[in-house]
Amino acid sequence: MTADIDSLDRADPLARFRERFAVPEGIVYLDGNSLGPPPKATAPRIAAAIADEWGKDLIGGWTRHGWIDLPLRLGNKIARLIGAAPGEVAVADSTSVNAFKLLAASLALRPERRVIVSERDNFPTDLYIAEGLVRLLDRGHELRAVAAEDLAGATDGDAAVVLLTEVNYRTGRRHDMAALTRRAHAAGALTIWDLAHSAGAFPVDLHAAHADFAIGCGYKYLNGGPGAPAFLYVARRHLPSFVSPLSGWLGHAAPFAFEPGYRPAESVARALCGTPAILAMLALEVGVDLLLEADIEAVRAKSIALSELFRERVERSCPWLALASPADPAQRGNQISFAHPEGYAVTQALIAQGVVGDFRAPDVMRFGFAPLYLRYADAARAADTLAEVLATRAWDRPEFKTRAAVT
Amino acid sequence: MTADIDSLDRADPLARFRERFAVPEGIVYLDGNSLGPPPKATAPRIAAAIADEWGKDLIGGWTRHGWIDLPLRLGNKIARLIGAAPGEVAVADSTSVNAFKLLAASLALRPERRVIVSERDNFPTDLYIAEGLVRLLDRGHELRAVAAEDLAGATDGDAAVVLLTEVNYRTGRRHDMAALTRRAHAAGALTIWDLAHSAGAFPVDLHAAHADFAIGCGYKYLNGGPGAPAFLYVARRHLPSFVSPLSGWLGHAAPFAFEPGYRPAESVARALCGTPAILAMLALEVGVDLLLEADIEAVRAKSIALSELFRERVERSCPWLALASPADPAQRGNQISFAHPEGYAVTQALIAQGVVGDFRAPDVMRFGFAPLYLRYADAARAADTLAEVLATRAWDRPEFKTRAAVT
Repeated sequence: MTADIDSLDRADPLARFRERFAVPEGIVYLDGNSLGPPPKATAPRIAAAIADEWGKDLIGGWTRHGWIDLPLRLGNKIARLIGAAPGEVAVADSTSVNAFKLLAASLALRPERRVIVSERDNFPTDLYIAEGLVRLLDRGHELRAVAAEDLAGATDGDAAVVLLTEVNYRTGRRHDMAALTRRAHAAGALTIWDLAHSAGAFPVDLHAAHADFAIGCGYKYLNGGPGAPAFLYVARRHLPSFVSPLSGWLGHAAPFAFEPGYRPAESVARALCGTPAILAMLALEVGVDLLLEADIEAVRAKSIALSELFRERVERSCPWLALASPADPAQRGNQISFAHPEGYAVTQALIAQGVVGDFRAPDVMRFGFAPLYLRYADAARAADTLAEVLATRAWDRPEFKTRAAVT
Repeated sequence: MTADIDSLDRADPLARFRERFAVPEGIVYLDGNSLGPPPKATAPRIAAAIADEWGKDLIGGWTRHGWIDLPLRLGNKIARLIGAAPGEVAVADSTSVNAFKLLAASLALRPERRVIVSERDNFPTDLYIAEGLVRLLDRGHELRAVAAEDLAGATDGDAAVVLLTEVNYRTGRRHDMAALTRRAHAAGALTIWDLAHSAGAFPVDLHAAHADFAIGCGYKYLNGGPGAPAFLYVARRHLPSFVSPLSGWLGHAAPFAFEPGYRPAESVARALCGTPAILAMLALEVGVDLLLEADIEAVRAKSIALSELFRERVERSCPWLALASPADPAQRGNQISFAHPEGYAVTQALIAQGVVGDFRAPDVMRFGFAPLYLRYADAARAADTLAEVLATRAWDRPEFKTRAAVT
């Protein structure tokens, strides 16, 4: 078995990418779906940006080093990962702020409708943002958050927009983006796809799905660093009628003309708001460049192979452990989750042994398989460590049960 | 005269701070009011954060290195620069996004009123954001942007909130924050002070002025780097009733409980939205720490001395040049502006000679005096270079008249 796994690693076309990341020695890092590790090129890139761009050219950096174009230039790179065209993606703000922009813009495009459809088990910030917008508008809008299986039925003639995260953050279950978008369009609604657990994880094809809008995260599979800037996508057909509620100066057609009235840029720059966070965007660019260098189809294939190896091995040693993800890899993202009543303690015990997954209340243990820095040997070790922790009840110690404020 | 200036520099209690900044040799940098230069400690701090925090602890950095507390911890530091109390300031998002949050929250606190008062010559993003909010709410609100001298009169019983930048970005003219806040309160309105050109420039006392809300910028006098995160202030008395329209998960009372419904944090964390931009905040912290190390009263005293030296020297050599700032330093921030019909070309000619100010349409040349890295000799050289450029018409060359997209 070990020999088999070694040969898998030797034959892995993505193996060469591992040395491009700074993953601590002895750690199996299965939490890149929460925060990706640093590419080794990130530190020198930021050091150079501080010393040679900001430090030498000061304010001149905005033009001389193209900082002012970075939100759209980096957006064009991300576009290639998500099946969008150049000019449809901008890097800006946080995923939550971008959700607000796209939700408000969507409601403005469907003024006669009052319902935002979403999934009850969506990542909470999407629901919170929708809730806040409904309260702010105070015009009788409704957030209709339903179970996944009720989404199609809930998308009726009252629905203005359907806001969904493609891959569920707890279970890794992947929605059928094309089918749900078709359903939304048939009902006359727009779609916003949250690609937090999709972008950089597997090939996304927004165009093929006829998606209207999308948002996504820079610090998970794109490895942009803690709190990296987020991105948003506006399908070209919606660009002329897209009105951002956050009409800051960087979304203006001529930001440096300092005109008294707002006039949106023609391009997707109209979705920008304040001054772009340059150092953070340059860090994100390093992560995006690495993914562009890899073949995203190969990333997906290896991710499935890793997670299947892990799943099969865990199920062989712990057949009683409840799989919390779809068993069919086509129906999930790059993560596998198992449920366990002591999931928090088990996760802590695993971390103590160098296998870093994470826990999501109430009982879900998540293991993310990001193929650029994970080996087949890592997936096998993770499965074996989990089996051992469960068999020996190594989790049953007080220090593993005390919950930190952040988990 | 040169001897006098040298003795001023020798006697300067802030002189020791200059070596803490990476200002290129031979450059007189008078554009710190647009983008401050890098503190020398920034690059090693970020390198350490990448290598030792993100690189070693990965997801564990959120708790182990206190990243999750950074927005409020850094906010408490900024609070000391602006006369706020601990727990009233948070670092988050951009100035524009924060303006949106505070404007929406203010209107919700004055539901029977419909007017946002501002200044026609306010920095445009504040006006654009107000305009966008009015359009989004679609409930008959009005942005009443008037000339500075008409502000008091415009603040009538219809006014819900007065949104003003304390220091005008073109002229450096400083509003009387206490008087205008009193006037607003007398009319039953709230105030939002934009401290973009105030924080880190001179002592601000939000409490003494009884200010309700404030926003500010991290990349000008706080030297946080291009597009550094911004901050916001919510007076403690407003905290219980403050409702952020951008109700993202980091503003939740228990972000990691992943509850389906939004429940705002008790603290000023309720003004947060998405995941904090850690690398960018750590860079900003270096700049803020430097200012806290200096005596802000001494900063202000030296800034006045520098700008007065510059003004007097320019007016002596070019008595016909139009001062675009108040002559009384008490009535301006840390910048001096002159108007010239060829201001753009003059600014470019100055930059070519190593004196970096900037230009704001239609005719304003801005010179910012940030005392932590500027010497009296720099102010003198800047004045002499300006006089020479004007006397020799060195600006009258085609390459100085071609406007870049960004200036």
